[in-house]
Amino acid sequence: MVFVTRKAHFSAAHRLFNPEFTDEENERIFDKCNNPRGHGHNYTIEVTVAGEPDPKTGYVIDLKKLGELIDDVILSKVDHKHLNYDVPELKGIIPTAENIALTFWNLLEPHIHSGKLSKIRVAESDNNFAEYRGVGY
Amino acid sequence: MVFVTRKAHFSAAHRLFNPEFTDEENERIFDKCNNPRGHGHNYTIEVTVAGEPDPKTGYVIDLKKLGELIDDVILSKVDHKHLNYDVPELKGIIPTAENIALTFWNLLEPHIHSGKLSKIRVAESDNNFAEYRGVGY
Amino acid sequence: MVFVTRKAHFSAAHRLFNPEFTDEENERIFDKCNNPRGHGHNYTIEVTVAGEPDPKTGYVIDLKKLGELIDDVILSKVDHKHLNYDVPELKGIIPTAENIALTFWNLLEPHIHSGKLSKIRVAESDNNFAEYRGVGY
Amino acid sequence: MVFVTRKAHFSAAHRLFNPEFTDEENERIFDKCNNPRGHGHNYTIEVTVAGEPDPKTGYVIDLKKLGELIDDVILSKVDHKHLNYDVPELKGIIPTAENIALTFWNLLEPHIHSGKLSKIRVAESDNNFAEYRGVGY
Amino acid sequence: MVFVTRKAHFSAAHRLFNPEFTDEENERIFDKCNNPRGHGHNYTIEVTVAGEPDPKTGYVIDLKKLGELIDDVILSKVDHKHLNYDVPELKGIIPTAENIALTFWNLLEPHIHSGKLSKIRVAESDNNFAEYRGVGY
Amino acid sequence: MVFVTRKAHFSAAHRLFNPEFTDEENERIFDKCNNPRGHGHNYTIEVTVAGEPDPKTGYVIDLKKLGELIDDVILSKVDHKHLNYDVPELKGIIPTAENIALTFWNLLEPHIHSGKLSKIRVAESDNNFAEYRGVGY
Repeated sequence: MVFVTRKAHFSAAHRLFNPEFTDEENERIFDKCNNPRGHGHNYTIEVTVAGEPDPKTGYVIDLKKLGELIDDVILSKVDHKHLNYDVPELKGIIPTAENIALTFWNLLEPHIHSGKLSKIRVAESDNNFAEYRGVGY
Repeated sequence: MVFVTRKAHFSAAHRLFNPEFTDEENERIFDKCNNPRGHGHNYTIEVTVAGEPDPKTGYVIDLKKLGELIDDVILSKVDHKHLNYDVPELKGIIPTAENIALTFWNLLEPHIHSGKLSKIRVAESDNNFAEYRGVGY
Repeated sequence: MVFVTRKAHFSAAHRLFNPEFTDEENERIFDKCNNPRGHGHNYTIEVTVAGEPDPKTGYVIDLKKLGELIDDVILSKVDHKHLNYDVPELKGIIPTAENIALTFWNLLEPHIHSGKLSKIRVAESDNNFAEYRGVGY
Repeated sequence: MVFVTRKAHFSAAHRLFNPEFTDEENERIFDKCNNPRGHGHNYTIEVTVAGEPDPKTGYVIDLKKLGELIDDVILSKVDHKHLNYDVPELKGIIPTAENIALTFWNLLEPHIHSGKLSKIRVAESDNNFAEYRGVGY
Repeated sequence: MVFVTRKAHFSAAHRLFNPEFTDEENERIFDKCNNPRGHGHNYTIEVTVAGEPDPKTGYVIDLKKLGELIDDVILSKVDHKHLNYDVPELKGIIPTAENIALTFWNLLEPHIHSGKLSKIRVAESDNNFAEYRGVGY
Repeated sequence: MVFVTRKAHFSAAHRLFNPEFTDEENERIFDKCNNPRGHGHNYTIEVTVAGEPDPKTGYVIDLKKLGELIDDVILSKVDHKHLNYDVPELKGIIPTAENIALTFWNLLEPHIHSGKLSKIRVAESDNNFAEYRGVGY
């Protein structure tokens, strides 16, 4: 088994809050991430696919094609957007790195036909990231 | 002359548009940076101070103190904010990296008493940055 | 299961030597890392916690709080210190990246109450790092 | 179990093509990676070894010695070379990151006598990498 | 005056040799960079433009448009190519980072109509780079 | 004029204090950098040389040879050392980044015979660095 990874980047705004919390709870729990107009990040995502290299091409999956798929299925929806308002798939979901990773997994997984989707990492800064991993990672 | 630099980081949302332009002009000129709810970045700033090292301390300026000054004078105003709405010093200013660098220069310059402020760099991503430089850089 | 990671940084001096070895053995085995007065590094640590995101917050663990915990429990003891002399928890332990990772795990693990501690990585340079992983990583 | 990793770097040219494909197939499948004279990369490799730290040294494996081994067994063969022509171990193999990782594993594995080889990552750019992992990674 | 910079990336093969030198001279002077089939790099280029921000847009030059210009005028000619054979503008020129920077300056300078081209940096690795600077940098 | 730069790395311990200060002054001025046993960093240095590329080689200066010179003249003295005790050239000098840059300039400048030494940057972390620049930088 070989694991191949493609990294991609997007920039977006978000705000962490839960409409079921009071303002005080949102403030206490989400702190400065609860700024009403939002703040933003340069997000980095890493998509890992596991499989056997095809003996004819040497590829588990063509990483250039995987990059185009990430562009089409994920980046076109989130790049230069406000994640709380502009992305239907994130409606009603608190856009933490954890939840963004899960949402991206669900968006991308049906499109992976060479190898199996193994991991999605979403980093909102150099210091903070979340990973969702499939079975057998 | 020695030039010392302190790097700092903040995360913010912004939107590029000019209220004097039509919607079509804003769209054509600012493209995806014109998304109405804004988008965001992990900004990096570099502040450079020029001077002679003090023979008693070996410092042009104490970079730890310079870091605290950047926190007080700049980061406390912009970190986890929406630059178009939450920062009085940017009111009426299109928040491009160029204009942010100029604004930060004006905020910080009066507070530099060891050496002279020489350069402020504002990067909105790994690939895009702007620098404002003082005389004699 | 989602895995979230917080990165942190500290600067410290250390020296690799074993008091049970002769000087020649220490020299041969630890080479330039055996310099008597020590040398130093900018260490990077990554702390990974595994769990289910809390549906109310979207967090496995609040990474800002995890960062404060790392500050309190680890960085306050090691940042700007000499690891061989100034850190009681490392007394009698050769401060390799391997042993530092194990020591940090023991310091931090009792404090993780959201999710389970899954991995601690300690990097002493861009090229060298050690990871201690818990069960089910 | 502790996992230690050593990173190393080399620069090389390569070309992706399969002599059993027609020119049109090579062009369609490998696209710009099929440029006849080749193109090149600054490759980064990460070698991970798993084991128990030796209580006398604190090392799973001496990372400086592991670095010298990587130099001798791998870098001396591939650094500043054209991977399609100059490296006997890659003869007849399409030099994708996947296949390079497998080839490096086979070259290095017999030489690891402290701990067990656990993973080899080969990155051909910041955005693309492949990993081969041993049992129990 | 504000200086704005756009970074871009390409991958290419090259070989350093001078046809007027003997094989021994090429070997002695260019060492491993003289490998007959070439080797390669992930090159990074930084293009800096100096000027006054336009008060209507806040831009010295639209960095997205500058990026597209770099794609059209430079990257389309060199990305995934062998610099010694595939790039007419480098014919007869030893493709050192110095000469590549000069060549890129000559390619790009006639196309910069907002602000003035101020600097081009060409990095062939994290450790080696060359800059060509215009007057008044 | 072209400016070429070579980056290099070393790891060292240091302590900031002035023997003419009282303990209280050293503590107040140098804060945690005054830890008696020292602390340490992974230092990065950048050496920039300015000149015309030699038409026969395309080099301002051979960066591989410049790297060997940095190894011989600088790194061999400071790598894996305690800067306060093990480096004769720093005796009696407070080892701030500013003073280290000046010391390295004086060590290296007499050895640069192709082009002219233009700048030395010494970074003690990603966030803090000092540059000494020659005339005409």
